[in-house]
Order: sequence, then C-alpha cells, then structure tokens
Amino acid sequence: MATTIETLTSEIRDFRDARDWLQFHNPKELAVAITAEAGELLQHFVWQSAEQSERRVTERRAEIESEIANVAILLLELADNCRIDLAAAIRTKLARNNERYPVARSKGSNRKYNEL
Amino acid sequence: MATTIETLTSEIRDFRDARDWLQFHNPKELAVAITAEAGELLQHFVWQSAEQSERRVTERRAEIESEIANVAILLLELADNCRIDLAAAIRTKLARNNERYPVARSKGSNRKYNEL
Amino acid sequence: MATTIETLTSEIRDFRDARDWLQFHNPKELAVAITAEAGELLQHFVWQSAEQSERRVTERRAEIESEIANVAILLLELADNCRIDLAAAIRTKLARNNERYPVARSKGSNRKYNEL
Amino acid sequence: MATTIETLTSEIRDFRDARDWLQFHNPKELAVAITAEAGELLQHFVWQSAEQSERRVTERRAEIESEIANVAILLLELADNCRIDLAAAIRTKLARNNERYPVARSKGSNRKYNEL
Repeated sequence: MATTIETLTSEIRDFRDARDWLQFHNPKELAVAITAEAGELLQHFVWQSAEQSERRVTERRAEIESEIANVAILLLELADNCRIDLAAAIRTKLARNNERYPVARSKGSNRKYNEL
Repeated sequence: MATTIETLTSEIRDFRDARDWLQFHNPKELAVAITAEAGELLQHFVWQSAEQSERRVTERRAEIESEIANVAILLLELADNCRIDLAAAIRTKLARNNERYPVARSKGSNRKYNEL
Repeated sequence: MATTIETLTSEIRDFRDARDWLQFHNPKELAVAITAEAGELLQHFVWQSAEQSERRVTERRAEIESEIANVAILLLELADNCRIDLAAAIRTKLARNNERYPVARSKGSNRKYNEL
Repeated sequence: MATTIETLTSEIRDFRDARDWLQFHNPKELAVAITAEAGELLQHFVWQSAEQSERRVTERRAEIESEIANVAILLLELADNCRIDLAAAIRTKLARNNERYPVARSKGSNRKYNEL
C-alpha cells in the first residue's frame, strides 16, 4: 500500500515529540539542518562528471539513500512545523513552473525561465 | 484524499519528461540544485532569532512555501532518478535514528548521537 | 611578515597545476565544492545554541580551522579563476554595504537592508 | 600595494563594530550566513555545463564578484572571530593535501584522497 505524506509526517512528529525536540526544531534550525544535510549529499558528487555521479549512486547506494532520507525527514518536519500542506505546495509550484517554462520554449533547454 | 509520494513523483516525472530535461537532471545536478534551493530557503532566516524566524514564516508564507516546494520537487525527483523508495528510506532512517537516539538518553538534548 | 592574498593564491595555483586539476576546476565546480565544504562547516553547529557554538570552536578547533581553510582555498581559487581581484571585490562590497546599512539605522539591528 | 588578510580583516571588523553586530555574529550564525551566500553563488550555475558556467562568469561578472565577496567577508570574519590565523590555516591545509594527494597518484585524477 502506497504511503502518504501525512502518514510519514506523523511518524516523524512522533519521533521528535518522544524526545521533546520541538524546542530545538524551529523553522530556522530546520532550514539550517536541511542545508547542512544537502551539503553532505552534495559532497558525494564534488568534482565528478555526470557519468561518475551515476556510477557512484550504484556503488554507494546505502549512504546516498541515507543522505536523501535525512533531507526528506527534515523537509517534511519543516512543512509540518509551518503548517504547510506539502503536496498542495508541490502542485502549486508545478503549476507555476508550467507557466514559467512553456513546453514549446523550454524543451531541451537548461535555461532559467527569466533567461529563456 | 491524501496524496502519496508515488503520485507526486509521477507528476514531477511528467513535468520533466515533457521538457526533455532528464538529460540535465542526473544525480549530481539534482544534488547541486537541491543545495542551491536549500540555500535560498536558509537565506530567509540568516541572522534571525528563533522568534523572528517563526514570525517570518507567518509574514512571508507564500515565498517560504515556494522554497520548500522547490527542494521537495527536486528531492522526489532525485529519489526517483536513483530508484530509491523514499518512504522506505525515511522509515529505515527513523529506525536507525531510534537506535542512535534512545529516548532515555536523548530526551531534551540537542547533542549528536556520537556525542550523547 | 603578513601574508597577502596574492601570495596565498599563487601557492594554491601551484598546488592545483602540479596535479593538472584546472580541467576539473571551472567556476561551476568550484562553486559546488565551496557550497559542499560550507555545509561541512555548518554541520558542526546544527541544533546548537550560540553558547554551544562558541564552546565547540574551542573544543574542536583543529577540525573547524580545517573546514574554514577548505572554503578559503576554494574561494581564492575561484576568484583567481574568474580573474577577480578579491581584495578589491571585498572593498567594493564593504562600500556598498556601508550605503545599504547606514550606521544610524542599522546599529544593533539584525534586519536586512531592504527591511530596515 | 598588495593587500594582506590582516588589513582586510581589520576593515571588516571595523564595519561590524560600528554597527554593534558582534552580538549576532557568533560562529554558528557566521557559518549559516556563509552557507546561504555560497548557495546564492551556486544558484548562478545550476543546470549549467562547464562551458556555460565560464560564459556566465563573463556575462554576469559584477553579480558573481559580489557573491564571492559576500562569502569572503563572512569567512574572514569567522576566522577572526575564532582567532584563527587564516593564512597559516590555508598553508597547514595545503601541506596536508600535499600528503593526501601525492602528485604521482593524483595528477589528472578527480578522485578523493581516500579513493585514489
């Protein structure tokens, strides 16, 4: 059975509250932790080519999976903390990106919307 | 009806593939983009106190929601790209953190597991 | 005798060129490496209070010094790579910040210039 | 006349102290600001190829120079705040990297020292 964001968020909240960690986990500290964990994820790929990065994902799967999970847990907690409906926020953003990046103009291009 | 990670991931994949962007979105480039977007999120809270960061979430909700969605979209795409089951990865990590941070020793403490 | 930025940059350039690494060290890759190393530096302070962060600097001085040096080496190399005179760039920025943050309005305040 | 790190650091300290900002600029907050500014620098290069990143440095020189200066100012301030001699720290690190990356084994290779 597929897992919803709500279910995962609730498990993360339980983990945090059992340890009385909400006192440390305000929006700023969560953003700090997310950036630090994103940096650890990025560390895997520094200096590497695209091909090397794909090989690394295969060779270091457990570590990379663990780094991705770290960022995800903190991000779900931040959204919850800010009372943001993450699924709705993602869809709002995809809709906006759909306007910013019309298929006809952005297909096959890596330019930013304001530089298309 | 609650949204599953699978459904959101599939919407993100459709968005990417309509633009033929997989050629740019290898694991390294996704990690780079995640870190850059995490930095934009963090930028909201630089120099701020915990109280100020909570007020900012209220006052700049739309922008912060948008930054969180940016990181989330890229993270779901990276997990999919690496064929990682994100829900399973999150639960594996919570289980490991449960061992690393036993409630009795970590309750009310902000220390890292290897410094508890 | 005090060390100039030019001298340090020249030592960093020699280190890089002895290894034929310029091929990997384009501006993008240097920015990626700087952000990843900044993330490692930040990792030291995640969840910590201001007081804890000051104590940590004392207790983990060698590691923190090493992280700061990592960022500095890459930053000097990036400036050199982009043919930017870093000392001049720093002074230009300080002059601009001096206009953005007039002492009378910014003294004792942690607000951004566009929110003063 | 070439500029020393000491001179620049002293100018940065004067700027900070005229605004009474030391109260906000503890090591943690400086590391947070450095990472956020590094993320802004990185934002210039997201999705870009090496060639595009080199072109961007030419086309957006003033902005990129300003981002590099932001990181540099904060890094000099952090080193000063921690009473770290940055020039010495850079040379210590270069010496250690010289051992970790012997020319004979690392020439032309983008591998990390523990994966050489």
